[in-house]
Order: sequence, then C-alpha cells, then structure tokens
Amino acid sequence: MIKPRIVIKLSGSLFNFETNSEQLNDYIQLIKKISNVYQPIIVTGGGKIARFYINLSRSLGMDESGLDLIGIQVSQLNARLLISGLAEYCYPLPPRNLEEISVALLSGLVLVTGGIYPGQSTNATSALIAERVGATKFYNATDVDGIYDSDPRTNPDAKKYDTINVQDCVNILKSEKSMAGTYDLMDLISLKVIERSKLPTIVFKSTLDNIEKVVLEKDKMGTEIII
Amino acid sequence: MIKPRIVIKLSGSLFNFETNSEQLNDYIQLIKKISNVYQPIIVTGGGKIARFYINLSRSLGMDESGLDLIGIQVSQLNARLLISGLAEYCYPLPPRNLEEISVALLSGLVLVTGGIYPGQSTNATSALIAERVGATKFYNATDVDGIYDSDPRTNPDAKKYDTINVQDCVNILKSEKSMAGTYDLMDLISLKVIERSKLPTIVFKSTLDNIEKVVLEKDKMGTEIII
Amino acid sequence: MIKPRIVIKLSGSLFNFETNSEQLNDYIQLIKKISNVYQPIIVTGGGKIARFYINLSRSLGMDESGLDLIGIQVSQLNARLLISGLAEYCYPLPPRNLEEISVALLSGLVLVTGGIYPGQSTNATSALIAERVGATKFYNATDVDGIYDSDPRTNPDAKKYDTINVQDCVNILKSEKSMAGTYDLMDLISLKVIERSKLPTIVFKSTLDNIEKVVLEKDKMGTEIII
Amino acid sequence: MIKPRIVIKLSGSLFNFETNSEQLNDYIQLIKKISNVYQPIIVTGGGKIARFYINLSRSLGMDESGLDLIGIQVSQLNARLLISGLAEYCYPLPPRNLEEISVALLSGLVLVTGGIYPGQSTNATSALIAERVGATKFYNATDVDGIYDSDPRTNPDAKKYDTINVQDCVNILKSEKSMAGTYDLMDLISLKVIERSKLPTIVFKSTLDNIEKVVLEKDKMGTEIII
Amino acid sequence: MIKPRIVIKLSGSLFNFETNSEQLNDYIQLIKKISNVYQPIIVTGGGKIARFYINLSRSLGMDESGLDLIGIQVSQLNARLLISGLAEYCYPLPPRNLEEISVALLSGLVLVTGGIYPGQSTNATSALIAERVGATKFYNATDVDGIYDSDPRTNPDAKKYDTINVQDCVNILKSEKSMAGTYDLMDLISLKVIERSKLPTIVFKSTLDNIEKVVLEKDKMGTEIII
Amino acid sequence: MIKPRIVIKLSGSLFNFETNSEQLNDYIQLIKKISNVYQPIIVTGGGKIARFYINLSRSLGMDESGLDLIGIQVSQLNARLLISGLAEYCYPLPPRNLEEISVALLSGLVLVTGGIYPGQSTNATSALIAERVGATKFYNATDVDGIYDSDPRTNPDAKKYDTINVQDCVNILKSEKSMAGTYDLMDLISLKVIERSKLPTIVFKSTLDNIEKVVLEKDKMGTEIII
Repeated sequence: MIKPRIVIKLSGSLFNFETNSEQLNDYIQLIKKISNVYQPIIVTGGGKIARFYINLSRSLGMDESGLDLIGIQVSQLNARLLISGLAEYCYPLPPRNLEEISVALLSGLVLVTGGIYPGQSTNATSALIAERVGATKFYNATDVDGIYDSDPRTNPDAKKYDTINVQDCVNILKSEKSMAGTYDLMDLISLKVIERSKLPTIVFKSTLDNIEKVVLEKDKMGTEIII
Repeated sequence: MIKPRIVIKLSGSLFNFETNSEQLNDYIQLIKKISNVYQPIIVTGGGKIARFYINLSRSLGMDESGLDLIGIQVSQLNARLLISGLAEYCYPLPPRNLEEISVALLSGLVLVTGGIYPGQSTNATSALIAERVGATKFYNATDVDGIYDSDPRTNPDAKKYDTINVQDCVNILKSEKSMAGTYDLMDLISLKVIERSKLPTIVFKSTLDNIEKVVLEKDKMGTEIII
Repeated sequence: MIKPRIVIKLSGSLFNFETNSEQLNDYIQLIKKISNVYQPIIVTGGGKIARFYINLSRSLGMDESGLDLIGIQVSQLNARLLISGLAEYCYPLPPRNLEEISVALLSGLVLVTGGIYPGQSTNATSALIAERVGATKFYNATDVDGIYDSDPRTNPDAKKYDTINVQDCVNILKSEKSMAGTYDLMDLISLKVIERSKLPTIVFKSTLDNIEKVVLEKDKMGTEIII
Repeated sequence: MIKPRIVIKLSGSLFNFETNSEQLNDYIQLIKKISNVYQPIIVTGGGKIARFYINLSRSLGMDESGLDLIGIQVSQLNARLLISGLAEYCYPLPPRNLEEISVALLSGLVLVTGGIYPGQSTNATSALIAERVGATKFYNATDVDGIYDSDPRTNPDAKKYDTINVQDCVNILKSEKSMAGTYDLMDLISLKVIERSKLPTIVFKSTLDNIEKVVLEKDKMGTEIII
Repeated sequence: MIKPRIVIKLSGSLFNFETNSEQLNDYIQLIKKISNVYQPIIVTGGGKIARFYINLSRSLGMDESGLDLIGIQVSQLNARLLISGLAEYCYPLPPRNLEEISVALLSGLVLVTGGIYPGQSTNATSALIAERVGATKFYNATDVDGIYDSDPRTNPDAKKYDTINVQDCVNILKSEKSMAGTYDLMDLISLKVIERSKLPTIVFKSTLDNIEKVVLEKDKMGTEIII
Repeated sequence: MIKPRIVIKLSGSLFNFETNSEQLNDYIQLIKKISNVYQPIIVTGGGKIARFYINLSRSLGMDESGLDLIGIQVSQLNARLLISGLAEYCYPLPPRNLEEISVALLSGLVLVTGGIYPGQSTNATSALIAERVGATKFYNATDVDGIYDSDPRTNPDAKKYDTINVQDCVNILKSEKSMAGTYDLMDLISLKVIERSKLPTIVFKSTLDNIEKVVLEKDKMGTEIII
C-alpha cells in the first residue's frame, strides 16, 4: 500500500529568468504521473537565479558559507514553483532539513525541496535524502548525459559508461586535473553517500522525455552507478 | 546612548535582474552612514524578481495568499543582499516577524528585513514595524515623489501635497475610481497604522540622493503625512 | 473522498467573562455535525477578554502592533476552548500561521485557530485562510445581520442587501464618513482578498441557529458577496 | 558589572478581571527600581483568568495536562502586561522555556515570564528558573504571610516560622492530611529544587510594600527557608 | 479503527554502555507486536549514560536544572535507538513536548520519546503524556517488582501490594524517612497526575517477558494503582 | 574592541566513557585563557560515545543519514560538557546551525557547538563555521601530528609537511588507495572550503599543551595549509 520512494534531482538549469509556466507544467504533469506508482521526492537546484543572488552577494562581501545559505533559499523558491502546480498531490511546503523530510513523508504525498545544507551540492543533499527516505533509486537528472572516462567537452574520444562501479567513479573524479566547477569535488560526497548506503543511482541528461523513460519505462539510459 | 530608531522602506524597484553590486553598494554605504546617527530598520520590497516568481506560481495554480508567502520569500532574499554588504554593521539575518524584530533590536545593529506577513504590502508591514520598534519617523521611499490630489500620470494638473493630514489621505485613496495597482487599496492599512500610532511619515521618491537628504539633512521633500 | 473545505469566522462576542460551557458546547456539537460534510476551518475572534488585555496593556504603554500580538494570543486561547470540546474531531493545536494551516489541513480534521497576523482583523485573516485552504465558501458570522447601504443603527431606512457585488461593497465602506470601529477600515483587506480570489462569501448574524441553517441547510440569509 | 540575579514569583492573584493599570503600574515601577540593583526574573502566576479558561476547558472535556498548557498560556499573557509597562527595561517577550531564559538573560534586561512547563506549579517553575540563572535569592510572593506549623486558617494556634529548614518544610507538607489546593502537593517540587540547589528562599505575603521591603531593604519578613 | 493508546515507561536501566542490539531488538519486536493492538507511546529513561553526562557536567559546575536538560537530551538519544529499530512502525523523531506529541499522535504510529521537561522524573512525564494522549493504561516498567509497604531492600518483611489506592500510595511515599533516590520525592508528581486524571496504572518489574504478559496477556503482575 | 575570531576543532577522542572532569577542566581553563585574546568558536567531535550510539542504531536498522543525525546529537552533548565548565564565559547553548551561530556570535562570548549538518565531518563543519564567523584562523586539533606525504602508520619513511599548499593536500588525499576512515574522503570538503575562502589552517596533534602553544604562543607546529 505504501508506494516505493524515489529521489529525483532536477537540474537547476530548469530555473532561470526565461522559465515559463508551460515548461514547468510539463514537469509537474510528469511528476503527478510518477506519483501514481512511486512517492517521489523532488530536489530542485538553484540554477541561474541562485547564481545571480550569489554573485551579487559575494561582490558585496558575503562569506562563502553565507552564500551557500542564499543559494539554498533560492532553490527552495524554485521548489515552491513546482509545489504551486502539484497542489494537492504535494506536501504544501518545501521541508527544510532531514528531520522535516522524515515527518513530511508520512503524508504519502510528493515532496519537493531544494538544497538544505550549506557546504553541499544539491546532488549530495539528494543522496542524503535518498538514504533518509529509504529510496529504492536515486535519479540524478543533470546537464550531461552520463559519466565519461574523461571530459567529453575537451576529449572527442571520451567514452561514456553504461554502468560504472562507485569506486571507479570516485577514481575518475580524483584523477581529474582541475576542480573546474564550483562543486565538482564536493560531489565526492554524493559518491561517498551512494557507496555507504549501496544506493542504486542513475545519472542522465535532464529532459522531460528522458525522465519519463528512465523512471517509468525503466529504459536504460545515461550511466548507472553500481555498488 | 540608545540611538533613535527609524524605519526606511526601500522600493522594490531597487531589486531586479539588472541590479548590480555598485548600485547596492551605494545604498549600503548610505545605510552605514545613517547608522552613525540612528538605528535604522530597513524594509526591502520584492520588486521584479518577486513578480517573476509570483506570476509563474500563479499561472501554475498557486492561491493568492500562497503567492503572498512567495513574495515575502523573495523580499527576504533582497534583504540578504543588503545584509551581505552591511556585514558587522547589521544583524546577520532578516527577522521573520515582529517578535524576532523586537529581539534583534536589542543588538543595537541595523536591521534589514523584507515582507513578513501575507495580505499586507511592505508599506503596511513597515508601518507595523515602526510601531513595534518605537520609530521616531517612517521614511517611505517609493516610485512616486509624493502624494497627489489625483493621479499625476493621467492628470497633468494633479497637485502634490507638501503635507497632508492622514484623514485627507485616506479620503483621497477612498475616492479613487479603480484599484489599479495590486496593493493600492491595502495601503489603507499603512494609513490606518500611521493614524492609530500618530507615526510621523514622509513619502518621497526613492533615490540615493533623496534618502540621504531627507534622512540625514532633514530636507523637506515629498509629502509629509501629519496627524 | 476529501471533503470540501469551508471557513467559518466566529464572532469574538462568543467569548467573554460570562461565557459558559453549555453555550460553547452547542457550537462544538454543531461543528462536529458540519464536519460530517465539510472540513471546516474555524476562526475565533478575541472578544471582550482580548479587549480587556489590550486596554490594560495600552494604558501601560504597549505599542499598537504589540497590542495586536496580545489580541492574537487571546483569540488563540479562545480557539483552545473549542479544541477542548472537539477533541478527536479536531487538530489538537491552533495553527499559528498560513504555513502551519496548510500542513495541519492534511490531517483531514477540523482546524480551529484565532488571529494570526498583526495589523489585520480576524475577518481579513479568515479570508486569507480561505484562500490558502481553497475554501469553497467563507461564512462570516458577525454581530450584524448583513450588509446595509447605510448604517442601520442610525438610519432607520437603511436597506439590507441580499446580494452585493464586492466592488459595490468596497464603495460603501469607502463612502462611510467615519472610521468608527477599530478595524472597520481594515476590513477592506477582507474585501480585497475576497475580490482577488473570487471567494464566495456570506455575511450574517452569528447565532447557533443561523450557522446551522446557512451552512448545512443552504438557507438564504444575511448578505451574499458576489464577484 | 553584571548585577546579581534574583527570581521573584508574583502571586497570580494580581491578575483578575478587575485588575487595573494603576495596580500593575505600581508593580512595574517597583520592578524598575529593583532593576537598578539586580537583574530580576519575574514569574507571573495565572490567577483567576487562568482558572476561568481552565474550568471552561475542563468542562468541555480537555485533559488535565492540556489544561496545564492552557494555564501556561494565560500566565504568559499576564507576563505581557508587565512587559507592556517595563518597555525598554525589559526583554520584549516572555521566554518559553529554560533554554530561552538562559539566552534572554544575556541581554542584561529584566525578564518576565509565566509558567513554562505542564505538571508544575509556577512556584516549582520559578525555582527551576532560579537554578538556571544562578539566582542569589528566590522571593516567593504568595497569598499567605509565611510557612506555619499547621494550617492557620483552621488552627488559631498555628505558629509561623521565621526560618525553617527545607527538610522540616518537606515534613510539614508531607504530614498534611489532605491535598486541598490543586497544586499543594506539587510544591514539594519547589522544595526539592530548593534543597538540591541550596537556593536561599523567602516566602512572604505578596504586597507591593512587602516586596520592596524584603527585596530592597532586606527586611526580615515571612519565612526564610534555610538549607 | 483508532487503536486504544497506552503509555509504557521503560526503565532507563535498559540503556547503558553494555547495551547491545540484541537486547534492544527484543524490545523492538515486542513493541511492534503491541502496536497491532494498541498505539503505544514509549518513554525511555536516561539510564547510566545520562548519569555519566550529568555527573561530569555537575562536577564542571552546571546548575541542577541545566543538568535536567542534559539528562533529557540523553533520554532522547535512547529513544532514537528504539526508533532505529521500529522504522516504519514508528514516528521518525522523538517528540520534544506535549504539543508535538499530540500532533505526532495523528500519524497513528508508535511514538517513542524520552524525558521532555526539567524538574520531572520520566515517570511524571509519562503520566502527563498519558493524560494528553487519553491513554487507557499507564504501564510503569521499573527496577522493582511493585509497590511495598516499606523498603523491601532493608525490610525482609515488606509486603507488596497487588492493588493500592493512589492516596495510600501517596501516604507511603510521604512517610518514607529519607529521600534516597534522586527523584523519589518528585514521583509524587506522577501520583498526583494519576490521581487527578484517574489514570489506571500498573507498576511492575521491567523485563521483556513481564511487559508482554502484563500488556498483551493482561496478567496480574506488580502493583495496580487504583483510584 | 571586537576580538578576532578563531575556530578550534577539538578531536572527539577527548570524549569517551573514561573522560573525567579534571581532563575537561584543563581544556576549559585553557579556553577561558584564549578568550582573553580571541572570541573562540569551539567545535567538539562525537568520539567513542557517538560511535557507540551510531553502531547500535546501525545494527538496529537506522539509515546512514539518520546515523549522522544521531552522531550530531552526541557531539552536541559533548559541547554541553564544555559549556558546563565555561559558564558565564560562554553562550549557554550549542548553536544548531550557521544561522544560530551568526546570531550567538553577537554575544561576544565563547561559542561551543558540535556537528551541525549530516553528511559532513566535524572538520568540514568547522571550516564552514570559520567562513561564517570570519575566523582569522582555523585550528584543527586532530589525532595525528600533521599532514604526511603518505600514511605514517604504514610507511616509516612518510614525511610530514611543515606547510603544504591546499591543492597539494587535495592531491595527496585523492591519490590514497583506500578510503579507510569513515569520513576520510569527505574531508575533501574541508579542503574545498579552506581553498574557496583562503582560510589559514593549522592541523596538529590535539594535546592541551599543543593547543596552548599553537594558539597563544604562535609556535610552529603540525602542518600549516597555505593558499
């Protein structure tokens, strides 16, 4: 009677100053559909609006962990956009920490939240949430279409993995020359969490179509991290 | 030893997707200067970013008081921008209700907050805050340069008041044909609050220069509401 | 399966130093009966006990928005009286803001609360709550038996409306000469909220019998505000 | 530089439907005077208004610990009356538990609170607070003028103690035939707390004059409990 | 459909540095079994680990009510051990006060909490909880096998009561020569609460077997306090 | 007038079932001494008692992020031990998140807290706190005496760095073959935080003597991470 729980991390790229309600509504309808089968916990990134506030605050002198808190606020606002459309399918507020998530879960409704802890990417937060709710699967919908053996943007011969062992995945991250993206390295937390909880995880390119296929139709897609 | 307290409502127009740190920094430096003489409580509006989130949420189906809550969240984010620059001059968080304001006040620091209650314009909220903190003056920095006997945008002969009795002000608002702006009518709350607490209030056009002149140099400007 | 939600504002006049348990019990039994058909959200006014505390605090020097907070506390105490009798029919605490209301609503139980925000009459708060819970109807049980074209206490020819357009209602309020009652003017917020959310509203005299008739038997009574 | 802290329990009899602002103002002025020498923590009882709400709720079916919570709410309202008059001499809110008290204490201001924990008389709560704040003295202003060897209302030969050992005091309470007052027995908690913390305590009749004499002029009065 | 609620106070002796998961698991399985018939509210004592922290803090200078707060923290940690094993049978957090308990109760799940209020034994707290949740029975699983007419450790002829009137029980406690255990006297609160709410209570020796027999098989055991 | 702020992470090894008050008192006296010069923020690890609760909960079935929350609770209890001895030198409660820390900081007192966020070592949390409070130095008192080019426990020729660039430090961590300790990898977060905020950091062996020397006498010791 209790539906299996899954965590879906939505790329923050969905949320920017050009976002319109049609785009969001498509996602909302899909989440409703998913909620027939699962109790999904959706985690929204901060996206461009978060970066706007963070950049502005940083140049005004805010410290880095203070900026994390600001980014969290924006990702929670993004969560409220989805909550607007999910209405009675959905817990009416974005829970603000793991304790609130575990209580909100009892409603049986879809949960939507954003970042909750400073010092962590929303990937890492999503993995922690997946642990806490006993998720059967963690779907990480990202801006890339999977995990490669080297950077596909610079290496045309980069090879995408269909499946990869979590330890190999850690090694790839470790061997990278630079820490380009702000939170690249910190995603080692996600991997650590995935490893410690043996959490089945799929990393794939975030499109409406892909989410439906990979979640509802069990299509093989992106990269599956195995333990 | 305790500095007199004043409330300054900053027009939300300061906060939009083109806002840059130089603009905000000018306001921040001015607030620091004001804090030598007063303990200012700054209330930030939501501006265009609030309207962006509100419009998006409304078209997704969020109810109106839920939209108020979203607007409040954005105005609080705007408050954090000023807090970023005010640093040690400033209480480190935007207080979330009148109780938190009365406690934060004890720090003797500048307070910055946004909207706090649904169903109220930030004007009305600012007036309530002014009551709670015992402000000696409420500076309402708006998008217009004062109170007119009719709408200056449509009537070229509209006459600006230098001073106006609060009851006359109520009558003007009452006699307006339409409720054009979203919260026009609700600003009757501000007037009611101003009246019940005999709160000295100045309504003037929000520019950096004007704020400095009216607050620090006691220039006559805009419209003074008298009781 | 989910019952339609309705908001019933109970006049604060129910709560005073002579109130006895029989009176309250009659209301409690009626609310139980209503809860067979609807999920009612009951909002209690502060009444004479609120005025007692407010007057005492005011003469001791409390500021006006601080007095609002005290009035809210008393109305919440009044809410606890009804909660005492509703027992397992009822959420066990008066929710303290719109967020708590939206969560408490998930219980499917009767909710009872009092005022929640300073600067607003419990009428206005009730209308905001009606928005937030998606109420199908807002029943405003007051001390008068409907809306008149002029003050029936002074004008024997005053005519009661059976239905009135919300905009006409605003105009009547605006045209009133004086702001007699403490929150008269502020009830323009209720109207503004009713208007923005097209909230079907009935204003009628608060008696046990009337509430039963108007809520359960759909009797025409008082004044219906139409949009 | 830090003033010694004292706890003064004010009898709830100060708060009833006939209480006027002059009476309260006398207490407020005295507390201001005391605050020149000490940091007083004032604990207000619930009095008749608490009993009114409690009796009403009980006859409507509220359970006993639920009634304790209601009594606490009323005593906190009473605390707000004193806060109204103490204004800037005073922490602006009644702290709601020992943790909040320990933080509010840092303000150096007068604290006023009411009951905070169910299942305890405000005597017992006051003693716990005295422990937490490191009070040098606990002044228990009550409806009787001290501790007697038997009930002075029924035994004309009852002898009042000037000083009494805490253990003897416990024995007297234990030997009482009946548990007349609602919380009589529970005041054994106060004694237990007084004993475990060797808290110097004076029990005396609550009048304005007495409080001034015993607190500021160090008059011998009532009964001193010694350890 | 709503199961009757019972409160089971578990002796803190279950929790010490030698406690292993097998022991706890036995209790957890029993609680699951009980939850088929009742909605049990389990209250865990602090035990040796609480005493370890309390003793250490006391010798470092913490005041006594501050120590109560530390003991409460440890008993809440003990509660989390049972929550770990009860998983989906159980509310995911230990509620922190009576208000949170009344809300958590709506989940229909097992509740586990520890001490919640300073100045009270977990016995007294359990009795207050029993009132609040409308428990049909309060099972006090202790380190002794019932209530005796004198101390069975020193008097070999001490006689155990099968049933005892609450008032007689108070008298026995009152007549005791010494206040040996830390909270002995304070357990008069439990009795007071039991008396005021006519709460059927059984005091018995805490073993797995006994709990099962007395709760599920209605075996006569220990001492029943009657009113 | 405002003292420079420093963060000192105390190894959890200080806290175990054999810890006595003399040991803790030595640390407490040192912290008092440090507080003459700095406003120290002390972060306590969980140590053996945390591992006891975590292991027990894990074998009962608690999920990993739930275990993080339990570990945080224990480290907060450890913080309360130091708070017990620091008394009026110290903020009376362990702040529970970065927001509470930024407010508690205004007291000018020593702050003591434990872990605050799941998924992070107390090292990482300490670095985030150092950012938030604008610490001039982060002292990481650990179980090892500095950073080595390989594991000194297995490689007798391992060479300790006096200073190391943060990027080199990251590379050493990355090149490690195994993830032996529970949070080894996650300490990459600390490094990331140290890097992004250019936070001067010293890693050294946690002894009373060392802390005094490195903090107050500016002795070179352990490894300094430079940016």
